[in-house]
Amino acid sequence: METVSENACFGGVQGVYSHKSEACKCDMTFGLFMPAEARDGPVPVLWYLSGLTCTHENAMTKAGAQGWAAEHGIALVFPDTSPRGDDVADDDAFDLGKGAGFYLNATQDPWAAHYHMWDYIATELPALLTENFEIDGARQAITGHSMGGHGALTLAMRLPGRFASVSAFSPICNPTQSDWGRKQFTAYLGEDDGEWARHDASLLMRERGVDGPVLVDTGTKDQFIDLLRPETLAEAAAARRQEATIRMQPGYDHSYFFVSTFMEDHVAFHAEALYGL
Amino acid sequence: METVSENACFGGVQGVYSHKSEACKCDMTFGLFMPAEARDGPVPVLWYLSGLTCTHENAMTKAGAQGWAAEHGIALVFPDTSPRGDDVADDDAFDLGKGAGFYLNATQDPWAAHYHMWDYIATELPALLTENFEIDGARQAITGHSMGGHGALTLAMRLPGRFASVSAFSPICNPTQSDWGRKQFTAYLGEDDGEWARHDASLLMRERGVDGPVLVDTGTKDQFIDLLRPETLAEAAAARRQEATIRMQPGYDHSYFFVSTFMEDHVAFHAEALYGL
Repeated sequence: METVSENACFGGVQGVYSHKSEACKCDMTFGLFMPAEARDGPVPVLWYLSGLTCTHENAMTKAGAQGWAAEHGIALVFPDTSPRGDDVADDDAFDLGKGAGFYLNATQDPWAAHYHMWDYIATELPALLTENFEIDGARQAITGHSMGGHGALTLAMRLPGRFASVSAFSPICNPTQSDWGRKQFTAYLGEDDGEWARHDASLLMRERGVDGPVLVDTGTKDQFIDLLRPETLAEAAAARRQEATIRMQPGYDHSYFFVSTFMEDHVAFHAEALYGL
Repeated sequence: METVSENACFGGVQGVYSHKSEACKCDMTFGLFMPAEARDGPVPVLWYLSGLTCTHENAMTKAGAQGWAAEHGIALVFPDTSPRGDDVADDDAFDLGKGAGFYLNATQDPWAAHYHMWDYIATELPALLTENFEIDGARQAITGHSMGGHGALTLAMRLPGRFASVSAFSPICNPTQSDWGRKQFTAYLGEDDGEWARHDASLLMRERGVDGPVLVDTGTKDQFIDLLRPETLAEAAAARRQEATIRMQPGYDHSYFFVSTFMEDHVAFHAEALYGL
Protein backbone atom coordinates (compact mmCIF):
# COMPACT_ATOMS: atom_id res chain seq x y z
CA MET A 1 0.00 0.00 0.00
CA GLU A 2 1.24 3.46 -0.91
CA THR A 3 0.39 6.80 0.66
CA VAL A 4 -0.71 9.24 -2.04
CA SER A 5 -1.42 12.12 0.34
CA GLU A 6 -2.27 12.90 3.93
CA ASN A 7 -3.83 16.20 5.05
CA ALA A 8 -4.72 17.31 8.55
CA CYS A 9 -8.50 17.65 8.66
CA PHE A 10 -10.87 18.30 11.59
CA GLY A 11 -8.28 17.16 14.10
CA GLY A 12 -7.66 13.91 12.24
CA VAL A 13 -6.12 12.92 8.92
CA GLN A 14 -7.67 12.79 5.45
CA GLY A 15 -5.51 10.29 3.59
CA VAL A 16 -5.46 8.89 0.08
CA TYR A 17 -3.86 5.49 -0.47
CA SER A 18 -3.33 3.18 -3.42
CA HIS A 19 -2.71 -0.55 -3.52
CA LYS A 20 -2.66 -3.53 -5.85
CA SER A 21 -6.14 -5.04 -5.81
CA GLU A 22 -6.45 -8.80 -6.13
CA ALA A 23 -10.17 -8.55 -6.71
CA CYS A 24 -9.94 -5.99 -9.51
CA LYS A 25 -6.50 -7.00 -10.79
CA CYS A 26 -5.33 -3.40 -11.01
CA ASP A 27 -4.13 -0.57 -8.78
CA MET A 28 -6.96 0.92 -6.75
CA THR A 29 -7.07 4.20 -4.84
CA PHE A 30 -9.24 5.08 -1.84
CA GLY A 31 -9.73 8.00 0.53
CA LEU A 32 -9.75 7.44 4.27
CA PHE A 33 -10.55 9.94 6.99
CA MET A 34 -9.25 8.92 10.41
CA PRO A 35 -10.51 10.96 13.38
CA ALA A 36 -8.26 12.06 16.25
CA GLU A 37 -9.65 9.22 18.39
CA ALA A 38 -7.85 6.67 16.20
CA ARG A 39 -4.59 7.66 17.89
CA ASP A 40 -5.87 5.87 21.00
CA GLY A 41 -7.14 2.70 19.34
CA PRO A 42 -9.58 1.29 16.79
CA VAL A 43 -12.56 3.44 15.79
CA PRO A 44 -15.81 2.57 14.02
CA VAL A 45 -15.96 3.12 10.25
CA LEU A 46 -18.60 4.47 7.89
CA TRP A 47 -18.30 3.44 4.23
CA TYR A 48 -19.30 5.99 1.61
CA LEU A 49 -19.90 4.52 -1.85
CA SER A 50 -19.96 7.07 -4.65
CA GLY A 51 -22.09 7.38 -7.76
CA LEU A 52 -21.58 7.30 -11.51
CA THR A 53 -18.48 9.10 -12.87
CA CYS A 54 -17.03 9.60 -9.38
CA THR A 55 -13.64 8.51 -8.12
CA HIS A 56 -12.50 8.20 -4.49
CA GLU A 57 -12.20 11.97 -4.49
CA ASN A 58 -15.63 13.48 -5.08
CA ALA A 59 -17.27 12.82 -1.75
CA MET A 60 -14.00 13.32 0.09
CA THR A 61 -13.86 16.92 -1.12
CA LYS A 62 -17.54 17.82 -1.58
CA ALA A 63 -19.77 15.93 0.86
CA GLY A 64 -18.72 17.76 4.02
CA ALA A 65 -18.65 14.49 5.95
CA GLN A 66 -15.36 14.77 7.83
CA GLY A 67 -16.53 17.36 10.34
CA TRP A 68 -19.45 15.23 11.46
CA ALA A 69 -17.34 12.06 11.49
CA ALA A 70 -14.79 13.87 13.66
CA GLU A 71 -17.55 14.91 16.04
CA HIS A 72 -18.53 11.27 16.49
CA GLY A 73 -15.03 9.76 16.35
CA ILE A 74 -15.81 7.73 13.23
CA ALA A 75 -13.53 6.87 10.30
CA LEU A 76 -14.79 7.38 6.74
CA VAL A 77 -13.69 5.32 3.76
CA PHE A 78 -14.23 6.57 0.21
CA PRO A 79 -13.55 3.77 -2.31
CA ASP A 80 -13.33 4.28 -6.05
CA THR A 81 -16.32 3.30 -8.21
CA SER A 82 -14.64 0.91 -10.67
CA PRO A 83 -11.33 -0.69 -11.60
CA ARG A 84 -8.86 1.68 -13.27
CA GLY A 85 -5.95 1.54 -15.67
CA ASP A 86 -5.14 1.39 -19.37
CA ASP A 87 -5.82 -2.33 -19.67
CA VAL A 88 -9.26 -2.08 -18.02
CA ALA A 89 -12.23 -2.28 -20.39
CA ASP A 90 -14.26 0.88 -20.79
CA ASP A 91 -17.16 2.33 -22.75
CA ASP A 92 -17.83 5.75 -24.23
CA ALA A 93 -20.99 6.10 -22.15
CA PHE A 94 -20.56 7.70 -18.71
CA ASP A 95 -22.77 5.03 -17.16
CA LEU A 96 -20.87 1.92 -18.23
CA GLY A 97 -17.28 0.86 -17.61
CA LYS A 98 -14.90 3.07 -15.69
CA GLY A 99 -16.66 5.11 -13.01
CA ALA A 100 -19.67 2.83 -13.28
CA GLY A 101 -18.80 -0.47 -11.60
CA PHE A 102 -22.24 -0.86 -10.03
CA TYR A 103 -20.78 -2.74 -7.05
CA LEU A 104 -21.07 -6.21 -8.59
CA ASN A 105 -18.81 -8.96 -9.97
CA ALA A 106 -19.02 -8.94 -13.76
CA THR A 107 -19.27 -12.35 -15.42
CA GLN A 108 -19.37 -11.23 -19.06
CA ASP A 109 -16.57 -10.22 -21.40
CA PRO A 110 -14.88 -7.77 -21.65
CA TRP A 111 -15.83 -6.79 -18.09
CA ALA A 112 -15.19 -10.02 -16.18
CA ALA A 113 -11.40 -9.55 -16.12
CA HIS A 114 -11.42 -6.53 -13.76
CA TYR A 115 -14.93 -5.49 -12.75
CA HIS A 116 -15.20 -7.22 -9.36
CA MET A 117 -16.28 -4.28 -7.23
CA TRP A 118 -18.48 -6.49 -5.05
CA ASP A 119 -15.53 -8.58 -3.89
CA TYR A 120 -13.41 -5.47 -3.58
CA ILE A 121 -15.83 -3.67 -1.26
CA ALA A 122 -17.21 -6.71 0.56
CA THR A 123 -13.95 -8.56 1.18
CA GLU A 124 -10.64 -7.12 0.02
CA LEU A 125 -10.82 -3.51 1.15
CA PRO A 126 -12.28 -4.20 4.62
CA ALA A 127 -9.42 -6.65 5.31
CA LEU A 128 -6.86 -4.13 4.11
CA LEU A 129 -8.37 -1.39 6.28
CA THR A 130 -8.48 -3.37 9.50
CA GLU A 131 -4.96 -4.66 8.92
CA ASN A 132 -3.37 -1.30 8.21
CA PHE A 133 -5.38 1.24 10.18
CA GLU A 134 -6.91 1.63 13.62
CA ILE A 135 -10.32 0.54 12.37
CA ASP A 136 -12.66 -1.68 14.33
CA GLY A 137 -14.02 -4.25 11.89
CA ALA A 138 -16.81 -5.12 14.31
CA ARG A 139 -18.27 -1.62 14.04
CA GLN A 140 -19.03 -0.81 10.40
CA ALA A 141 -21.85 1.15 8.79
CA ILE A 142 -22.47 2.03 5.15
CA THR A 143 -23.92 4.81 3.05
CA GLY A 144 -23.68 6.00 -0.54
CA HIS A 145 -25.02 8.27 -3.24
CA SER A 146 -26.96 7.27 -6.34
CA MET A 147 -25.17 4.18 -7.77
CA GLY A 148 -23.36 4.15 -4.41
CA GLY A 149 -26.68 4.17 -2.58
CA HIS A 150 -27.57 1.08 -4.58
CA GLY A 151 -24.24 -0.42 -3.54
CA ALA A 152 -24.73 0.44 0.14
CA LEU A 153 -28.23 -1.02 0.28
CA THR A 154 -27.40 -4.22 -1.60
CA LEU A 155 -24.22 -4.85 0.39
CA ALA A 156 -26.01 -4.27 3.68
CA MET A 157 -28.80 -6.67 2.77
CA ARG A 158 -26.57 -9.41 1.39
CA LEU A 159 -24.01 -9.26 4.19
CA PRO A 160 -26.22 -9.61 7.27
CA GLY A 161 -24.41 -8.78 10.47
CA ARG A 162 -21.72 -6.75 8.71
CA PHE A 163 -23.18 -3.27 9.02
CA ALA A 164 -24.81 -1.76 12.08
CA SER A 165 -26.84 0.58 9.88
CA VAL A 166 -27.31 1.55 6.25
CA SER A 167 -28.30 4.82 4.65
CA ALA A 168 -28.39 6.28 1.17
CA PHE A 169 -28.65 9.58 -0.65
CA SER A 170 -30.83 9.41 -3.79
CA PRO A 171 -30.06 5.71 -4.34
CA ILE A 172 -30.83 3.71 -7.47
CA CYS A 173 -33.56 1.62 -5.83
CA ASN A 174 -34.79 -0.71 -8.53
CA PRO A 175 -32.13 -1.20 -11.21
CA THR A 176 -33.79 -4.26 -12.77
CA GLN A 177 -36.60 -1.94 -13.90
CA SER A 178 -34.53 1.13 -14.75
CA ASP A 179 -32.24 2.31 -17.55
CA TRP A 180 -29.75 2.80 -14.72
CA GLY A 181 -29.49 -0.94 -14.19
CA ARG A 182 -30.85 -2.95 -17.11
CA LYS A 183 -28.19 -1.74 -19.51
CA GLN A 184 -25.36 -2.32 -17.03
CA PHE A 185 -26.64 -5.65 -15.68
CA THR A 186 -26.97 -6.92 -19.25
CA ALA A 187 -23.40 -5.90 -20.02
CA TYR A 188 -21.83 -7.06 -16.76
CA LEU A 189 -24.01 -10.05 -15.81
CA GLY A 190 -25.59 -11.15 -19.08
CA GLU A 191 -29.24 -11.87 -19.61
CA ASP A 192 -31.27 -12.04 -16.42
CA ASP A 193 -30.93 -15.46 -14.79
CA GLY A 194 -31.73 -14.46 -11.23
CA GLU A 195 -28.41 -12.77 -10.65
CA TRP A 196 -29.94 -9.37 -11.43
CA ALA A 197 -32.31 -9.66 -8.49
CA ARG A 198 -29.38 -10.07 -6.10
CA HIS A 199 -28.34 -6.51 -7.02
CA ASP A 200 -31.72 -4.82 -6.74
CA ALA A 201 -32.32 -3.03 -3.42
CA SER A 202 -36.10 -3.08 -3.70
CA LEU A 203 -36.23 -6.80 -4.49
CA LEU A 204 -33.76 -7.57 -1.69
CA MET A 205 -35.79 -5.44 0.69
CA ARG A 206 -38.88 -7.42 -0.18
CA GLU A 207 -37.09 -10.75 0.26
CA ARG A 208 -34.82 -10.26 3.22
CA GLY A 209 -34.59 -6.67 4.51
CA VAL A 210 -31.80 -5.39 6.71
CA ASP A 211 -30.91 -6.37 10.24
CA GLY A 212 -30.51 -2.76 11.33
CA PRO A 213 -32.00 0.68 10.80
CA VAL A 214 -32.29 2.25 7.34
CA LEU A 215 -32.26 5.94 6.38
CA VAL A 216 -32.86 7.09 2.79
CA ASP A 217 -33.09 10.68 1.51
CA THR A 218 -34.12 11.63 -2.02
CA GLY A 219 -34.81 15.12 -3.37
CA THR A 220 -38.26 15.79 -4.80
CA LYS A 221 -36.60 17.75 -7.61
CA ASP A 222 -33.99 15.09 -8.33
CA GLN A 223 -33.47 15.26 -12.10
CA PHE A 224 -32.90 11.50 -12.23
CA ILE A 225 -35.77 10.47 -9.97
CA ASP A 226 -37.52 8.39 -12.65
CA LEU A 227 -34.35 6.32 -12.94
CA LEU A 228 -33.99 5.98 -9.17
CA ARG A 229 -37.54 4.76 -8.47
CA PRO A 230 -37.56 5.54 -4.71
CA GLU A 231 -41.21 4.50 -4.57
CA THR A 232 -40.27 0.84 -5.04
CA LEU A 233 -37.94 0.85 -2.03
CA ALA A 234 -40.39 2.82 0.10
CA GLU A 235 -43.14 0.34 -0.71
CA ALA A 236 -40.94 -2.70 -0.07
CA ALA A 237 -39.63 -1.38 3.26
CA ALA A 238 -43.09 -0.53 4.54
CA ALA A 239 -44.53 -3.85 3.31
CA ARG A 240 -41.78 -5.71 5.14
CA ARG A 241 -42.22 -3.61 8.34
CA GLN A 242 -38.52 -2.82 8.08
CA GLU A 243 -37.16 -0.29 10.59
CA ALA A 244 -36.62 2.55 8.12
CA THR A 245 -36.86 6.28 7.58
CA ILE A 246 -37.49 7.11 3.94
CA ARG A 247 -37.58 10.84 3.32
CA MET A 248 -38.44 12.89 0.24
CA GLN A 249 -36.69 16.24 0.67
CA PRO A 250 -38.59 19.13 -0.89
CA GLY A 251 -36.80 21.05 -3.63
CA TYR A 252 -33.49 19.18 -3.55
CA ASP A 253 -31.83 17.70 -6.63
CA HIS A 254 -29.20 15.00 -7.23
CA SER A 255 -26.12 17.15 -6.51
CA TYR A 256 -23.62 17.23 -3.69
CA PHE A 257 -25.40 20.38 -2.49
CA PHE A 258 -28.16 17.94 -1.54
CA VAL A 259 -25.80 15.33 -0.11
CA SER A 260 -23.89 17.82 2.04
CA THR A 261 -27.14 19.31 3.34
CA PHE A 262 -28.20 16.02 4.92
CA MET A 263 -24.78 14.59 5.75
CA GLU A 264 -25.03 15.66 9.40
CA ASP A 265 -28.22 13.62 9.81
CA HIS A 266 -26.73 10.55 8.16
CA VAL A 267 -23.54 10.54 10.19
CA ALA A 268 -25.50 11.04 13.44
CA PHE A 269 -27.82 8.20 12.41
CA HIS A 270 -24.89 5.84 11.88
CA ALA A 271 -23.13 7.00 15.05
CA GLU A 272 -26.15 6.03 17.10
CA ALA A 273 -26.13 2.54 15.61
CA LEU A 274 -22.35 2.14 15.80
CA TYR A 275 -22.08 3.17 19.42
CA GLY A 276 -25.20 1.23 20.37
CA LEU A 277 -23.52 -2.06 19.48
CA MET B 1 -27.52 38.82 -15.36
CA GLU B 2 -28.01 35.19 -16.25
CA THR B 3 -28.74 32.23 -13.98
CA VAL B 4 -26.26 29.45 -14.66
CA SER B 5 -27.61 27.08 -12.02
CA GLU B 6 -29.58 27.00 -8.79
CA ASN B 7 -29.49 24.07 -6.36
CA ALA B 8 -31.38 23.66 -3.12
CA CYS B 9 -28.81 23.61 -0.34
CA PHE B 10 -29.20 23.64 3.45
CA GLY B 11 -32.74 25.02 3.19
CA GLY B 12 -31.61 27.86 0.91
CA VAL B 13 -30.33 28.13 -2.65
CA GLN B 14 -26.80 27.78 -3.99
CA GLY B 15 -26.86 29.76 -7.22
CA VAL B 16 -24.33 30.50 -9.94
CA TYR B 17 -24.84 33.63 -12.03
CA SER B 18 -22.98 35.33 -14.84
CA HIS B 19 -23.07 38.94 -15.99
CA LYS B 20 -21.25 41.45 -18.16
CA SER B 21 -18.71 43.19 -15.97
CA GLU B 22 -18.00 46.86 -16.63
CA ALA B 23 -14.97 46.78 -14.38
CA CYS B 24 -13.34 43.76 -16.03
CA LYS B 25 -14.84 44.27 -19.49
CA CYS B 26 -15.77 40.62 -19.83
CA ASP B 27 -18.39 38.14 -18.65
CA MET B 28 -17.90 37.25 -15.00
CA THR B 29 -19.40 34.36 -13.03
CA PHE B 30 -20.02 34.17 -9.29
CA GLY B 31 -21.53 31.77 -6.80
CA LEU B 32 -24.11 32.97 -4.28
CA PHE B 33 -25.62 31.04 -1.40
CA MET B 34 -28.86 32.55 -0.13
CA PRO B 35 -30.19 31.14 3.17
CA ALA B 36 -33.88 30.41 3.77
CA GLU B 37 -34.18 33.67 5.74
CA ALA B 38 -33.74 35.65 2.52
CA ARG B 39 -37.31 34.74 1.59
CA ASP B 40 -38.44 37.15 4.32
CA GLY B 41 -36.14 40.05 3.50
CA PRO B 42 -32.53 41.17 3.22
CA VAL B 43 -29.87 39.10 4.97
CA PRO B 44 -26.24 39.88 5.86
CA VAL B 45 -23.56 38.70 3.46
CA LEU B 46 -20.12 37.14 3.91
CA TRP B 47 -17.70 37.50 0.99
CA TYR B 48 -15.34 34.61 0.32
CA LEU B 49 -12.39 35.49 -1.93
CA SER B 50 -10.57 32.50 -3.39
CA GLY B 51 -6.91 31.81 -3.99
CA LEU B 52 -4.65 31.20 -6.97
CA THR B 53 -6.03 28.97 -9.75
CA CYS B 54 -9.54 29.00 -8.27
CA THR B 55 -12.76 30.03 -9.96
CA HIS B 56 -16.09 30.89 -8.29
CA GLU B 57 -16.56 27.16 -7.86
CA ASN B 58 -13.82 25.82 -5.60
CA ALA B 59 -14.95 27.18 -2.25
CA MET B 60 -18.60 26.77 -3.19
CA THR B 61 -18.10 23.00 -3.49
CA LYS B 62 -15.25 22.29 -1.07
CA ALA B 63 -15.22 24.74 1.85
CA GLY B 64 -18.31 23.42 3.61
CA ALA B 65 -19.47 26.97 4.33
CA GLN B 66 -23.14 26.80 3.38
CA GLY B 67 -24.23 24.76 6.39
CA TRP B 68 -22.80 27.26 8.84
CA ALA B 69 -24.09 30.23 6.83
CA ALA B 70 -27.55 28.64 6.87
CA GLU B 71 -27.34 28.23 10.63
CA HIS B 72 -26.68 31.96 11.00
CA GLY B 73 -28.96 33.17 8.18
CA ILE B 74 -26.09 34.67 6.22
CA ALA B 75 -25.58 34.84 2.45
CA LEU B 76 -22.24 33.81 0.94
CA VAL B 77 -20.78 35.25 -2.24
CA PHE B 78 -18.01 33.43 -4.12
CA PRO B 79 -16.52 35.70 -6.82
CA ASP B 80 -14.11 34.53 -9.49
CA THR B 81 -10.40 35.33 -9.05
CA SER B 82 -9.71 37.11 -12.35
CA PRO B 83 -11.28 38.28 -15.58
CA ARG B 84 -12.04 35.49 -18.06
CA GLY B 85 -12.42 34.99 -21.78
CA ASP B 86 -10.41 34.42 -24.95
CA ASP B 87 -9.44 38.07 -25.31
CA VAL B 88 -8.17 38.39 -21.73
CA ALA B 89 -4.38 38.38 -21.33
CA ASP B 90 -2.89 35.33 -19.63
CA ASP B 91 0.44 33.79 -18.70
CA ASP B 92 1.69 30.22 -18.66
CA ALA B 93 2.46 30.45 -14.94
CA PHE B 94 -0.36 29.47 -12.60
CA ASP B 95 0.30 32.52 -10.43
CA LEU B 96 -0.06 35.25 -13.04
CA GLY B 97 -2.96 36.15 -15.31
CA LYS B 98 -6.17 34.12 -15.26
CA GLY B 99 -6.95 32.72 -11.83
CA ALA B 100 -4.44 35.14 -10.30
CA GLY B 101 -5.99 38.61 -10.33
CA PHE B 102 -4.63 39.50 -6.89
CA TYR B 103 -7.62 41.78 -6.17
CA LEU B 104 -6.08 44.93 -7.65
CA ASN B 105 -6.50 47.22 -10.66
CA ALA B 106 -3.70 46.57 -13.13
CA THR B 107 -2.12 49.62 -14.70
CA GLN B 108 0.41 47.90 -16.97
CA ASP B 109 -0.01 46.29 -20.37
CA PRO B 110 -1.21 43.74 -21.29
CA TRP B 111 -3.11 43.47 -18.01
CA ALA B 112 -4.67 46.91 -17.70
CA ALA B 113 -7.43 46.20 -20.21
CA HIS B 114 -9.29 43.66 -18.05
CA TYR B 115 -7.58 43.07 -14.70
CA HIS B 116 -9.63 45.36 -12.45
CA MET B 117 -10.57 42.94 -9.72
CA TRP B 118 -10.37 45.63 -7.05
CA ASP B 119 -13.11 47.68 -8.69
CA TYR B 120 -15.07 44.54 -9.42
CA ILE B 121 -15.11 43.35 -5.80
CA ALA B 122 -15.16 46.75 -4.11
CA THR B 123 -17.79 48.45 -6.27
CA GLU B 124 -19.43 46.59 -9.13
CA LEU B 125 -20.37 43.25 -7.61
CA PRO B 126 -21.70 44.65 -4.30
CA ALA B 127 -24.03 46.97 -6.24
CA LEU B 128 -25.20 44.10 -8.43
CA LEU B 129 -25.85 41.89 -5.40
CA THR B 130 -27.88 44.41 -3.41
CA GLU B 131 -29.90 45.34 -6.52
CA ASN B 132 -30.75 41.79 -7.53
CA PHE B 133 -30.90 39.77 -4.32
CA GLU B 134 -32.23 40.11 -0.80
CA ILE B 135 -28.86 41.19 0.53
CA ASP B 136 -28.41 43.89 3.14
CA GLY B 137 -25.53 46.08 1.95
CA ALA B 138 -25.19 47.56 5.43
CA ARG B 139 -24.21 44.18 6.87
CA GLN B 140 -21.19 42.80 5.03
CA ALA B 141 -18.20 40.79 6.24
CA ILE B 142 -15.28 39.34 4.29
CA THR B 143 -12.98 36.34 4.33
CA GLY B 144 -10.72 34.53 1.88
CA HIS B 145 -8.06 31.92 1.36
CA SER B 146 -4.42 32.49 0.38
CA MET B 147 -4.47 35.16 -2.40
CA GLY B 148 -8.11 35.65 -1.35
CA GLY B 149 -7.04 36.19 2.26
CA HIS B 150 -4.77 38.94 0.95
CA GLY B 151 -7.76 40.36 -0.91
CA ALA B 152 -10.05 40.19 2.12
CA LEU B 153 -7.56 41.90 4.41
CA THR B 154 -6.61 44.66 1.97
CA LEU B 155 -10.21 45.39 1.00
CA ALA B 156 -11.27 45.53 4.65
CA MET B 157 -8.48 47.92 5.55
CA ARG B 158 -8.91 50.21 2.56
CA LEU B 159 -12.69 50.37 2.73
CA PRO B 160 -13.24 51.41 6.35
CA GLY B 161 -16.84 51.03 7.46
CA ARG B 162 -17.67 48.54 4.69
CA PHE B 163 -17.10 45.27 6.54
CA ALA B 164 -18.19 44.44 10.07
CA SER B 165 -15.37 41.91 10.38
CA VAL B 166 -12.57 40.36 8.37
CA SER B 167 -11.00 36.92 8.52
CA ALA B 168 -8.61 34.89 6.43
CA PHE B 169 -7.38 31.34 5.91
CA SER B 170 -3.63 31.12 5.23
CA PRO B 171 -3.51 34.61 3.67
CA ILE B 172 -0.64 36.09 1.70
CA CYS B 173 0.31 38.59 4.37
CA ASN B 174 3.24 40.51 2.97
CA PRO B 175 3.26 40.34 -0.84
CA THR B 176 5.75 43.20 -1.29
CA GLN B 177 8.36 40.91 0.30
CA SER B 178 7.27 37.60 -1.22
CA ASP B 179 7.51 35.78 -4.55
CA TRP B 180 3.72 35.63 -4.25
CA GLY B 181 3.47 39.36 -4.72
CA ARG B 182 6.61 40.93 -6.13
CA LYS B 183 6.30 39.14 -9.46
CA GLN B 184 2.60 39.94 -9.81
CA PHE B 185 2.80 43.52 -8.56
CA THR B 186 5.63 44.18 -11.03
CA ALA B 187 3.55 42.78 -13.87
CA TYR B 188 0.25 44.38 -12.93
CA LEU B 189 1.34 47.64 -11.26
CA GLY B 190 4.85 48.25 -12.61
CA GLU B 191 7.86 49.12 -10.54
CA ASP B 192 7.05 49.98 -6.94
CA ASP B 193 5.94 53.60 -6.65
CA GLY B 194 3.98 53.31 -3.44
CA GLU B 195 1.05 51.52 -5.08
CA TRP B 196 2.45 48.16 -3.96
CA ALA B 197 2.09 49.12 -0.31
CA ARG B 198 -1.63 49.75 -0.78
CA HIS B 199 -1.97 46.02 -1.52
CA ASP B 200 0.11 44.64 1.34
CA ALA B 201 -1.91 43.52 4.36
CA SER B 202 0.97 43.79 6.82
CA LEU B 203 1.88 47.32 5.72
CA LEU B 204 -1.76 48.39 5.79
CA MET B 205 -2.15 46.84 9.22
CA ARG B 206 0.81 48.85 10.43
CA GLU B 207 -0.55 52.09 8.93
CA ARG B 208 -4.25 51.94 9.48
CA GLY B 209 -5.59 48.64 10.82
CA VAL B 210 -9.20 47.56 10.60
CA ASP B 211 -12.24 49.07 12.25
CA GLY B 212 -13.55 45.70 13.37
CA PRO B 213 -12.36 42.33 14.65
CA VAL B 214 -9.85 40.21 12.73
CA LEU B 215 -9.45 36.42 12.68
CA VAL B 216 -6.61 34.70 10.80
CA ASP B 217 -5.82 30.97 10.71
CA THR B 218 -2.68 29.47 9.15
CA GLY B 219 -1.50 25.87 9.32
CA THR B 220 1.90 25.21 10.85
CA LYS B 221 2.55 22.68 8.07
CA ASP B 222 1.39 24.99 5.29
CA GLN B 223 3.63 24.11 2.34
CA PHE B 224 3.58 27.75 1.20
CA ILE B 225 4.11 29.36 4.59
CA ASP B 226 7.39 31.04 3.60
CA LEU B 227 5.51 32.81 0.82
CA LEU B 228 2.63 33.77 3.12
CA ARG B 229 4.75 35.34 5.88
CA PRO B 230 2.08 35.24 8.62
CA GLU B 231 4.65 36.55 11.10
CA THR B 232 4.56 39.98 9.49
CA LEU B 233 0.83 40.35 9.95
CA ALA B 234 0.93 38.96 13.48
CA GLU B 235 3.61 41.45 14.42
CA ALA B 236 1.83 44.38 12.79
CA ALA B 237 -1.53 43.58 14.40
CA ALA B 238 -0.01 43.22 17.85
CA ALA B 239 2.10 46.36 17.44
CA ARG B 240 -1.00 48.31 16.45
CA ARG B 241 -3.07 46.86 19.34
CA GLN B 242 -5.58 45.76 16.71
CA GLU B 243 -8.49 43.63 17.94
CA ALA B 244 -7.35 40.36 16.36
CA THR B 245 -7.07 36.63 16.80
CA ILE B 246 -4.13 35.21 14.85
CA ARG B 247 -3.90 31.44 15.14
CA MET B 248 -1.28 28.96 13.97
CA GLN B 249 -3.08 25.63 13.62
CA PRO B 250 -0.85 22.63 14.36
CA GLY B 251 -0.32 20.15 11.54
CA TYR B 252 -2.61 21.77 8.97
CA ASP B 253 -1.53 22.56 5.40
CA HIS B 254 -2.78 24.93 2.68
CA SER B 255 -5.63 22.74 1.40
CA TYR B 256 -9.38 22.96 1.60
CA PHE B 257 -9.19 20.21 4.24
CA PHE B 258 -7.71 22.95 6.40
CA VAL B 259 -10.20 25.61 5.29
CA SER B 260 -13.24 23.40 5.89
CA THR B 261 -11.95 22.40 9.31
CA PHE B 262 -12.07 25.98 10.57
CA MET B 263 -14.97 27.29 8.50
CA GLU B 264 -17.43 26.88 11.39
CA ASP B 265 -15.29 29.19 13.55
CA HIS B 266 -14.97 31.81 10.83
CA VAL B 267 -18.67 31.93 10.00
CA ALA B 268 -19.57 32.15 13.70
CA PHE B 269 -17.00 34.94 14.14
CA HIS B 270 -18.55 36.95 11.31
CA ALA B 271 -22.10 36.23 12.47
CA GLU B 272 -21.31 37.75 15.85
CA ALA B 273 -20.02 40.93 14.19
CA LEU B 274 -22.82 41.08 11.60
CA TYR B 275 -25.62 40.68 14.10
CA GLY B 276 -23.94 42.96 16.61
CA LEU B 277 -24.27 45.90 14.22
